[in-house]
Amino acid sequence: MTTFATPGAGQQSTLTPRLIELAHALFEAEQTAPVSRFRTPEEMCRAIELAIPEKGSSPERVMDLLEDVALATPRTASRRFFNQLFAGRHDIASAAEIVAVLLNSSMYTYKAAGPHVLIEKELGEHMGRKVGYDDGEGIFTPGGSLSNFAGIMIARNEFNERCQQDGHDGSWLTLYSSELDHYSIAKNLAMLGLGRRSLRKVATDERGRMRADALRDAIKRDIEEGAKPFCINATCGTTVLGAYDPLDEIADVAEEFGVWFHVDGAFGGSTALSAKHRDHLKGSERSDSFTWDAHKMMGVPLSCSVILTKDKGLLRKHFSESASYLFQSDEDELNHGVKSMQCGRRNDCLKLWAAWQHLGDEGYARKIDRLYDLARSFAERVKKDPRCTLSKEPESVNVCFEVTGKPSDLICETLRQQQKSLVGFGIVDGRRVIRAAFVNADVDEADLDDFFDNLVEVAMTLPDGDNAL
Amino acid sequence: MTTFATPGAGQQSTLTPRLIELAHALFEAEQTAPVSRFRTPEEMCRAIELAIPEKGSSPERVMDLLEDVALATPRTASRRFFNQLFAGRHDIASAAEIVAVLLNSSMYTYKAAGPHVLIEKELGEHMGRKVGYDDGEGIFTPGGSLSNFAGIMIARNEFNERCQQDGHDGSWLTLYSSELDHYSIAKNLAMLGLGRRSLRKVATDERGRMRADALRDAIKRDIEEGAKPFCINATCGTTVLGAYDPLDEIADVAEEFGVWFHVDGAFGGSTALSAKHRDHLKGSERSDSFTWDAHKMMGVPLSCSVILTKDKGLLRKHFSESASYLFQSDEDELNHGVKSMQCGRRNDCLKLWAAWQHLGDEGYARKIDRLYDLARSFAERVKKDPRCTLSKEPESVNVCFEVTGKPSDLICETLRQQQKSLVGFGIVDGRRVIRAAFVNADVDEADLDDFFDNLVEVAMTLPDGDNAL
Repeated sequence: MTTFATPGAGQQSTLTPRLIELAHALFEAEQTAPVSRFRTPEEMCRAIELAIPEKGSSPERVMDLLEDVALATPRTASRRFFNQLFAGRHDIASAAEIVAVLLNSSMYTYKAAGPHVLIEKELGEHMGRKVGYDDGEGIFTPGGSLSNFAGIMIARNEFNERCQQDGHDGSWLTLYSSELDHYSIAKNLAMLGLGRRSLRKVATDERGRMRADALRDAIKRDIEEGAKPFCINATCGTTVLGAYDPLDEIADVAEEFGVWFHVDGAFGGSTALSAKHRDHLKGSERSDSFTWDAHKMMGVPLSCSVILTKDKGLLRKHFSESASYLFQSDEDELNHGVKSMQCGRRNDCLKLWAAWQHLGDEGYARKIDRLYDLARSFAERVKKDPRCTLSKEPESVNVCFEVTGKPSDLICETLRQQQKSLVGFGIVDGRRVIRAAFVNADVDEADLDDFFDNLVEVAMTLPDGDNAL
Repeated sequence: MTTFATPGAGQQSTLTPRLIELAHALFEAEQTAPVSRFRTPEEMCRAIELAIPEKGSSPERVMDLLEDVALATPRTASRRFFNQLFAGRHDIASAAEIVAVLLNSSMYTYKAAGPHVLIEKELGEHMGRKVGYDDGEGIFTPGGSLSNFAGIMIARNEFNERCQQDGHDGSWLTLYSSELDHYSIAKNLAMLGLGRRSLRKVATDERGRMRADALRDAIKRDIEEGAKPFCINATCGTTVLGAYDPLDEIADVAEEFGVWFHVDGAFGGSTALSAKHRDHLKGSERSDSFTWDAHKMMGVPLSCSVILTKDKGLLRKHFSESASYLFQSDEDELNHGVKSMQCGRRNDCLKLWAAWQHLGDEGYARKIDRLYDLARSFAERVKKDPRCTLSKEPESVNVCFEVTGKPSDLICETLRQQQKSLVGFGIVDGRRVIRAAFVNADVDEADLDDFFDNLVEVAMTLPDGDNAL
């Protein structure tokens, strides 16, 4: 077959030019039509032949198919994508991710992955220091949900030292988390065999931050009722509002009751890089474990999530199993497989390391500040426009608002169908609001104008509707 | 900055040529020096500046650094890499993975990922049919360990319907698995809150296959002692020997006791594609869930693992949590996020779909057959050479052997240090043996000769040693 990469095949590359052509078609489409054409799933299936065939096709035909798929994909890197907590494209990070694809290392051992396990170690320690862990460590996981899983699992096992060997004993262990927390907390408790009943939701204040007094009351009440509190989860950057729980106050409660203190900073952890905004994370150094997704505010390709622990050795203690066929060299401290919930594990580190080499701590600080500025700037537009209602002052890089009297869900769906922008809705104080996330630092003021103007314009064409739930 | 991908930046690309240059340097190195230079971790840290800097560097400088890292990485795509259950590089799959990197979709919803969730659905159903699930479904996970996690978790929850809500009740649930199973089974039981004591290891026969009679006896004995058997895990392709548990006989036992039947086909599942060898999987249609890694025998980049279930709806039943801000369109069946243990999830599907489009079922059948032929051919070399001892007739694509009287571990380490080949060792019947995995279909007979001759030659230079443990 035509080849760009098979070592020793001795053939000229014909695939590379086609791949570059495809990439350029994509980049151009992102500029000229930042939202891909709306198609229902049925229309998509008719437009592109997706079935796996009995007989294969030429590389040329497959590359054509790939281009069709690429151009039909929602354009997360375009400047009109405000729908998720990730967006945009960082060139060096993407280039490094492509290198990682070609290297195809599995991260279990130094023998198999070489410098990449050293890079992972450096990143874990560097990120740990950013949240105040002077002698911590970290391991990359497939995403924020599973980083939270790791943190909560360590908490469970540290609480009950017999759990790893004997299993959960059926007692009522409780975890405390904000009513605005990520759904992975409940999900993880179910996965971990503790059950959803373990999750105790704690009330938030008017800014969406977990209330330390309510937390303390909840723990006291539960203890009286026979529960065994084992963990507090604080959220740094809630999904809808982008709110930050007050870590210092929560740390006081965690210390008072002697429970594990995990921080879900999947979204907001990157704020640790900004001198201007890192006060949001004040107290993070008092936590025991910390989830941080670099594929969100740090803009590297999916996925790039790390679980950090304040103390070295915990990951190994709770995740290692012997596997003599695998961990067989003497570089034992560098056999990261024993610290991971995975065995084979793709390399999610190189892209972040490369982006960080390019930007440095300083450049990343500027990038994070830029996101906060964009959100603030967009919120000003909302506040100035009499047709709109800002739900809350933005806590970080999310802006929640309504076009007064117009249904938020329908606005989002119409913007999508008319290829104007991709943005989603969320619930704030019992109302359905538009949630725009500003996580693409390449977006500029003209983009904000265009996004905002189109949104209000589209809203005005829609029938009135109530956003109260 | 220089750019190859930022939409709207209006700059000419300077990064793409540099990336191609880097890739070509890598491809050339893979040919001229298929094993990268041996360096200790300390030497590696001295050779490459890995620390994250305060101030950033130019893109050019970072690309130079990336090239240093790339050339210092163990060459998993070279024709002398027999160290892991993955190897090689499939061009179309790599190209598609690069496209997936540029698209940067998260797989939770049709709104966010468009055609890619349709591709995931198609692959899950197609792969399900290959193992005999006529109306099943599948979801991609970050690797075989976590696919097994999903299968075992569903088994746990189906056994105790209260578990998701109330947690594990502390009773002694037992899972049965071969003494040669993957270590993720024990690890997953610990993670799931059932504890390692839940794992009941079952004896294997002389070919490394779980003995159905021993399985039946173990279950009976445990029930008498108060255990609650909830799951049997059969291994298709053990890590060292590549052995296949007898699924039909095991299915009889599973039916007899009414327990969940999970198959860990992470390694061997791909054999379902081969008309010639699929008898190894006979009875798979009687299982309830099935783990299959396409990044192993199918040769696509890491990671590409799927958990298949015989019945539709189970994934959703056991993994969904409500998240109104996320799953907000009417394309509900296509919101794969509700079927996954993850929330944000990278696109591991496109590479496999593209490779399959190119090869078709027929081409993949030939590829799998080719791997079996390579292993058989290598085993013949071992058998013919009076200096070597074949540990067992190969069951699939692994060959285990000794150079008689020479220490297997030292042979592997010396081959690595002398840049001859990368291969690992395992334990068979209490002896340390060399385990070579033949999972790169581009390897040819000349490569086998060279690998084998170098290995024996290096062994002859080493002091005698006993491989008995």
